[in-house]
Amino acid sequence: MPEKAEPVTACVLIIGNEILSGRTRDSNFPYLARALNELGIQVQECRVIADVEAAIASAVNACRTRYDYVFTTGGIGPTHDDITVDSIAAAFGVKASHHPEAVKLLQAHYANSNVELNEARLRMARIPAGATLIDNPVSKAPGFRLDNVFVLAGVPAIARAMFDSITHELSGGAPLKSKTIATYLAEGTISKPLRALQAKFPDVQLGSYPFYRTSRFGTSIVARSIDVDRLGQAAAELRVLITALGGEPIEDTNDPG
Amino acid sequence: MPEKAEPVTACVLIIGNEILSGRTRDSNFPYLARALNELGIQVQECRVIADVEAAIASAVNACRTRYDYVFTTGGIGPTHDDITVDSIAAAFGVKASHHPEAVKLLQAHYANSNVELNEARLRMARIPAGATLIDNPVSKAPGFRLDNVFVLAGVPAIARAMFDSITHELSGGAPLKSKTIATYLAEGTISKPLRALQAKFPDVQLGSYPFYRTSRFGTSIVARSIDVDRLGQAAAELRVLITALGGEPIEDTNDPG
Repeated sequence: MPEKAEPVTACVLIIGNEILSGRTRDSNFPYLARALNELGIQVQECRVIADVEAAIASAVNACRTRYDYVFTTGGIGPTHDDITVDSIAAAFGVKASHHPEAVKLLQAHYANSNVELNEARLRMARIPAGATLIDNPVSKAPGFRLDNVFVLAGVPAIARAMFDSITHELSGGAPLKSKTIATYLAEGTISKPLRALQAKFPDVQLGSYPFYRTSRFGTSIVARSIDVDRLGQAAAELRVLITALGGEPIEDTNDPG
Repeated sequence: MPEKAEPVTACVLIIGNEILSGRTRDSNFPYLARALNELGIQVQECRVIADVEAAIASAVNACRTRYDYVFTTGGIGPTHDDITVDSIAAAFGVKASHHPEAVKLLQAHYANSNVELNEARLRMARIPAGATLIDNPVSKAPGFRLDNVFVLAGVPAIARAMFDSITHELSGGAPLKSKTIATYLAEGTISKPLRALQAKFPDVQLGSYPFYRTSRFGTSIVARSIDVDRLGQAAAELRVLITALGGEPIEDTNDPG
């Protein structure tokens, strides 16, 4: 995919009842969102869905046509509640079966251990027809890619390792750079001139987020753009605007861009 | 809604570019998921969506017909990027305008402060036609309910206070109770008998989650059911199963049910 004027987009599907119940807190989405943004890929949606084949298949089909890339995490282990492989196969209308290369990976891995490669563990070599494997440097059982859908493990260390092993397959646009400027002015005070600034810079996304720190209310304004010059101009005008309202602009030095 | 055999369901929509970019980590979903489960309402989906009217309206319309309840968080403040009110109005095909009761709440609140109730702050009194207000004990600007859609603030302290003020309007089914039993057996070892146990207890949801603690791999099995007796029976058989495989069942005493 060549760099293009339209943003390159992605959706992340977090699969798992344990996340939906509030019992386990997902940490894969924040990692993927930041990593994709660095590659110039904008995550425009995330869904957390249940371990239910129809729910997974319908979300995959809704999102794979709408976004350039879809990433799923979770549900590719050896137990009965790991149904992501079959759900993705159902979404694409293909069959899943033992993939010879994946079987070899598991055989080699378990041959070096005192753990038996039983039927349950061999299930982790089942891959939908037409998919290519994604390397799992942590525990060998691979993820896979089918068309624009990338299927990763749920365990965060493995999801990250798998993602890092596929970044060369992803083509992004220009990454969104950001600048954050905070002030102890309230959102309601800064709102009107900020709206005018947004109208003047349609190519810079201005987000406004209230905060409460050291007993004082304030507003954090995040400016984001693929155009570094315009971003700098908007940030400069924002500083002037804050000062004119009697506030003091506070730079966020942690900003990546 | 009377207690019914079918589960009472909900979907949570987290609205905000700051969450999608990975910059801010959402904490509203885990809170709502747990609180709803305690009320006997099962969260079956969560979506994180951008500050884009068409995206918000289409997600609201997809979810409000599919689930008994929809909860949104974010986007109801005074700034230009707060577009949830208009997006919900668009989803329902109604207009948003200044709600007399909401205006009075803001007038009373700001009369007691040295802060001006300017045009931007008055925007927070704009409510879609037909909606009823949701109390905001923290900063007064209300949320609202329209049909089965509950619109809450994004700031976690306010989202929680708003949710706690509407729980009497929600009718759940029997809450899912859970028991967690962990073991230092690997998922691949326990998988086959666990699948058989799941087949024997179709009314108990068995989730299997691998973990790595104190340099050892293990599996945490979460059993969930609305039927406490069946839950206890499944847990008892699970302990026997783990012991038969040479493992030791470890009870999770933090379990609520």
